Amino acid sequence: MDASEFRSRGKEMVDYIADYLETISLRHPLPTVKPGYLRAMIPDQAPVTGEAWEQVKKDIERVIMPGVTHWHSPHFHAYFPAGNSYPALLGDMLSDAIGCIGFTWASSPACTELEVVMMDWLAKMLHLPTEFLFSDEGKGGGVIQGTASEATLVALLSARTTMSTKLQAADRNLSHGQILDKLIAYTSEESHSSVERAALIGMVKIRKLRTDDNCSLRLCATVGTTSSCAFDNLRELGPVCTRYDVWMHVDAAYAGSACVCPEFRYLIDGLEHSMSFNFNPHKWLMVNFDCSAMWVKDRDLVSGAFELDPLYLKHDNQGQAMPDYRHWQIPLGRRFRSLKLWFVLRMFGTEGLQQQIRKDVSLAKQFESLVRSDPRFEIFGAVTLGLVCFRLKGPNSTNEALNKRINDDRRIHLVPSKVKGTYFLRFAVCASSTQSSDVTFAWSVIQDITGSVLKEIRLQ
Amino acid sequence: MDASEFRSRGKEMVDYIADYLETISLRHPLPTVKPGYLRAMIPDQAPVTGEAWEQVKKDIERVIMPGVTHWHSPHFHAYFPAGNSYPALLGDMLSDAIGCIGFTWASSPACTELEVVMMDWLAKMLHLPTEFLFSDEGKGGGVIQGTASEATLVALLSARTTMSTKLQAADRNLSHGQILDKLIAYTSEESHSSVERAALIGMVKIRKLRTDDNCSLRLCATVGTTSSCAFDNLRELGPVCTRYDVWMHVDAAYAGSACVCPEFRYLIDGLEHSMSFNFNPHKWLMVNFDCSAMWVKDRDLVSGAFELDPLYLKHDNQGQAMPDYRHWQIPLGRRFRSLKLWFVLRMFGTEGLQQQIRKDVSLAKQFESLVRSDPRFEIFGAVTLGLVCFRLKGPNSTNEALNKRINDDRRIHLVPSKVKGTYFLRFAVCASSTQSSDVTFAWSVIQDITGSVLKEIRLQ
Repeated sequence: MDASEFRSRGKEMVDYIADYLETISLRHPLPTVKPGYLRAMIPDQAPVTGEAWEQVKKDIERVIMPGVTHWHSPHFHAYFPAGNSYPALLGDMLSDAIGCIGFTWASSPACTELEVVMMDWLAKMLHLPTEFLFSDEGKGGGVIQGTASEATLVALLSARTTMSTKLQAADRNLSHGQILDKLIAYTSEESHSSVERAALIGMVKIRKLRTDDNCSLRLCATVGTTSSCAFDNLRELGPVCTRYDVWMHVDAAYAGSACVCPEFRYLIDGLEHSMSFNFNPHKWLMVNFDCSAMWVKDRDLVSGAFELDPLYLKHDNQGQAMPDYRHWQIPLGRRFRSLKLWFVLRMFGTEGLQQQIRKDVSLAKQFESLVRSDPRFEIFGAVTLGLVCFRLKGPNSTNEALNKRINDDRRIHLVPSKVKGTYFLRFAVCASSTQSSDVTFAWSVIQDITGSVLKEIRLQ
Repeated sequence: MDASEFRSRGKEMVDYIADYLETISLRHPLPTVKPGYLRAMIPDQAPVTGEAWEQVKKDIERVIMPGVTHWHSPHFHAYFPAGNSYPALLGDMLSDAIGCIGFTWASSPACTELEVVMMDWLAKMLHLPTEFLFSDEGKGGGVIQGTASEATLVALLSARTTMSTKLQAADRNLSHGQILDKLIAYTSEESHSSVERAALIGMVKIRKLRTDDNCSLRLCATVGTTSSCAFDNLRELGPVCTRYDVWMHVDAAYAGSACVCPEFRYLIDGLEHSMSFNFNPHKWLMVNFDCSAMWVKDRDLVSGAFELDPLYLKHDNQGQAMPDYRHWQIPLGRRFRSLKLWFVLRMFGTEGLQQQIRKDVSLAKQFESLVRSDPRFEIFGAVTLGLVCFRLKGPNSTNEALNKRINDDRRIHLVPSKVKGTYFLRFAVCASSTQSSDVTFAWSVIQDITGSVLKEIRLQ
């Protein structure tokens, strides 16, 4: 395919994408394929000679689409939202075309520099403590990670190195293993599985602390848990961490986006006590995956956990005003991800993003009202943002049956969760195109299925 | 921006991309900007109200392009190539539009299934031992990682868990720390810095072994080192690793792509002794970053290092024929990266990819001949694939001066390296559009600058 063919095929693809997203509500959000469906549909090896685009293109609908879970359908209410917007798509097209591997400043200065400024823009939109900004005089700064899991791991490794260095300074005879046996990571029993996984990778022991009745942690910290969007209390945790020299990392993967609205900023009050903070613009800020924003108060403590400097990666401007982001992350290579963030922040503006957040929260409130108006149901936890946890009053088994029937029905898609032994369903407002009528539709599907589930149970 | 505006802006972007890549040789490969250049060019915070696309678009040339290192310029000869092709760009556009987060099979079945089949396609193209294939009856399989650094880390963590489990079974009283003190990773002194970094993250001690005069390691294994594209001898290392129960991971990040050609397949002879293998189609197989292909012989040993199973990620088809790739990688979320691989493999065909590799190797040979025809120069190491290491005979300092002058001149871009105390320049054939005339051009630039560097030295 040469440039001239790309001009026409690329434009066809632009139309295909617009068609796909404009008509996505006509597709069931969850596919019906069974594991292994795809293998039988395509050859078992690559072709020897190249195929024409027409051949490839027709397989998108034939082979791929039947197996896609449509995250951008307004009837998709599972997990948490995946960001998506046309400006972000344009940014990623450009990023791919430039195709630089921004591991050092020199390997493509614009890639590092735009990221530095975008992380400051975002920090200002969220009113983060100024110590986290590059523009501040301190040692703070932000970086785009691929996922919140990586941000958590980077924070844990930075904390591990920082603490190990202190312990080793106090007793030179300690082996790596002996030091490791002294380290403990604390987290909430309701924190995301990636926290436990980070501890596993870093070989740091983990202690999971009990949460209170609101699933809020009273001694290290999640703002908006995955299970039920619960909030740990940073203002209580923070001073304790400071007092006992604990590295507090705050993971607000989903909820952080809401802090662009003044009325939700209180959710991260107390952040000034933390050493590192992370949220995912690729969840709820209209930026395509992957774009996980992480800030640290002391960039030396992060790069100190990783820094190795082979000659082929050295450059004249090293160690100056601009960071070499390869020292801030697990992988070496990195894409030019700040472009999509830049396009989104500019084309939506702060107001446009606030509108989007507020719309989604109001849709969640609408769903909550519908649930509360039906005496068969109860709300689990508080509805603060765009997630509603709900269940049929009574045993977990009835709710398990309801969940299965809703997903087998395929008109809408959601996933269940369990907190402190209670099984419930999660209704997340996901696609940016979701409207009030989609909420009404989802509730009518749920009520419809609830009727038949309860009837079956009575007949048993 | 609505769908209708995206249709027109997207098509403009397609043309911009085609224009950029068609005229890229008119831009200097390395920019002249200084650290901090970008911050002064744009506002210090996000706009409150959204801007029009015209405003954003004009800043691409004004703000971004002056700071881009053009990896796809035919005059870019630094590092190793970054893959890029029009079919890959189309694949990534589609991936972004679908925008699924493929952490489990159920979260988007097509995302997992296409990857499974593509990894088998690739494995067959490289004639990997059948134990690495999903289609084999054993426990093997492949996964797309973001980078080779991540593949190395995943291999190290898998080996660490496997060995820790054995040690703990032998003595239940050992603490994590005590076990860790017993583990050692062996690698070549010439292996990539990511290997040492993986050991640092995993807290496993590392021993770097000396290489022979060809920088080839004689006892764990790189096929095509970054410094000089040296090859470790898998047929000698393999049996030793088997005998002493050592997990052999083979990193062929750059060189692996060449194994689609029968005449280069010998480079990974002995791979049957390894537990895991990795190469980067995003380097030399026309696929845009990121797409790092990794295979393992026993997938249980990889997922065993990571597996955690919260309810919100469980699904009915778990543990069946298809993998949940979240257990195979560091991050949780993942993009639909197999689409670009599928498009590339189909539209180039095996023959088209072989042609590309052979063209690049012949261009490296052409450059080697030019160097050898000039008695002032010498070749460092052997030229096997698309990298030529060369230097001016004499002290390192002259070569350091030559490197600096070439890069300050800006007509071409390359980076230096150092092996066993000898400093040399690396000429990599990078952009897929590189032609014989670009090699001649680069050599004329080098000769031109060499003349003035040597003259200055004589005058000193």
